[in-house]
Amino acid sequence: VRTVAGTLERALQAAGLQVTGLGGSGRTDAGVHALGQVVHFDVPDARAGLPWRQALNSQLPEDMAVVEAGPVPDTFHARVSATAKTYAYTLWLEPGYILPQRRPFVWARNPLDLDALDRAAGLFVGRRDFAAFMNVGTPVKDTVREILSITRSPGLFPQETVLRFRATGFLKQMARNIVGCLVAAGRGKLGPDEVRALLAAGDRSLAPATAPARGLCLESVEYGG
Amino acid sequence: VRTVAGTLERALQAAGLQVTGLGGSGRTDAGVHALGQVVHFDVPDARAGLPWRQALNSQLPEDMAVVEAGPVPDTFHARVSATAKTYAYTLWLEPGYILPQRRPFVWARNPLDLDALDRAAGLFVGRRDFAAFMNVGTPVKDTVREILSITRSPGLFPQETVLRFRATGFLKQMARNIVGCLVAAGRGKLGPDEVRALLAAGDRSLAPATAPARGLCLESVEYGG
Repeated sequence: VRTVAGTLERALQAAGLQVTGLGGSGRTDAGVHALGQVVHFDVPDARAGLPWRQALNSQLPEDMAVVEAGPVPDTFHARVSATAKTYAYTLWLEPGYILPQRRPFVWARNPLDLDALDRAAGLFVGRRDFAAFMNVGTPVKDTVREILSITRSPGLFPQETVLRFRATGFLKQMARNIVGCLVAAGRGKLGPDEVRALLAAGDRSLAPATAPARGLCLESVEYGG
Repeated sequence: VRTVAGTLERALQAAGLQVTGLGGSGRTDAGVHALGQVVHFDVPDARAGLPWRQALNSQLPEDMAVVEAGPVPDTFHARVSATAKTYAYTLWLEPGYILPQRRPFVWARNPLDLDALDRAAGLFVGRRDFAAFMNVGTPVKDTVREILSITRSPGLFPQETVLRFRATGFLKQMARNIVGCLVAAGRGKLGPDEVRALLAAGDRSLAPATAPARGLCLESVEYGG
């Protein structure tokens, strides 16, 4: 299986650069995009000043690029030091067609009552037990997470709307599972009381299906502050 | 060779729809995108009311979609009736990387003096002989065309700028050849007098290289008015 970390490691090898302890801010599911993934690795002090971005981008395949590279304090850890993450999910709202160039980046759902969707989104904000919105995978001790905000704004194309989730942490497929639920609310299949009941019951099998990976993008990871 | 017209014809066949006289507003080079290509075809009167968009989109491959379909007067011809076309060319201005999702849609040129580029663009507007900006292909009698406007505006991403060419007609690869010249001007390799001399000489071999197809998109075709 091709992974972001594995691809980066191969590019480093191809550039003749020895690094250790490479780690990312977290794994993204296959098909999920990223504009702001963060990784760290250890290099000998003497190599800290190398043009790392250039060295990596000259070796990386066309579907991956390093936007920025630079030294960080020894204590920095891409996952452990992260204080918040923002994921964006793009919905295609126009019926009848999808622009081909947007197909790998959107989920087409229409018609949607966006007011109902926004109202449902409000129910997810805050510190809550998201057990009903975690897919089976690595067992976690604690399914409580804090969503700092869920906002909706225009997308790159006028036919799109973007849901943006900022949280201190996400469970496995949590953003995609919440989107599945918000879209069900926007299609009139789920009222506010039912959303509240889903959150309270904590049972994944009762909640709507996971939204497709392609609409999701890890936009940014925050550190400190 | 796979073409837009051929792909459309296969989709019509797959949908069991017999049409005749299919024609587009013009051919786009391989690798050039289109958001606003226009085609016409003849159908028996009894079938004019079919849901053509739906029938076609259910058969078209993922990289092509019909945005709108409807009846037009018998006299309408996608190419002959066109009064103007607009092509957009996207330049990626940020050095050091290209966002992978934008790679098929941009040409990365930097650094660029955008004021110099804009000044050069002004020299192309109007009714002129564009012989120096036509690639060899089907011979044409007349190499005079009229560019109504060349404007530059922000792209989908903040690292991009978009050159938009509106003209009553384009010679083969004319937009891409003008972009090649404008980028040379933006890189300080060509002054206004040299641009004027290129236009006057009408010799393709003296002009800068053709810009890559991937940055170009046929945005719209105008009819009437």
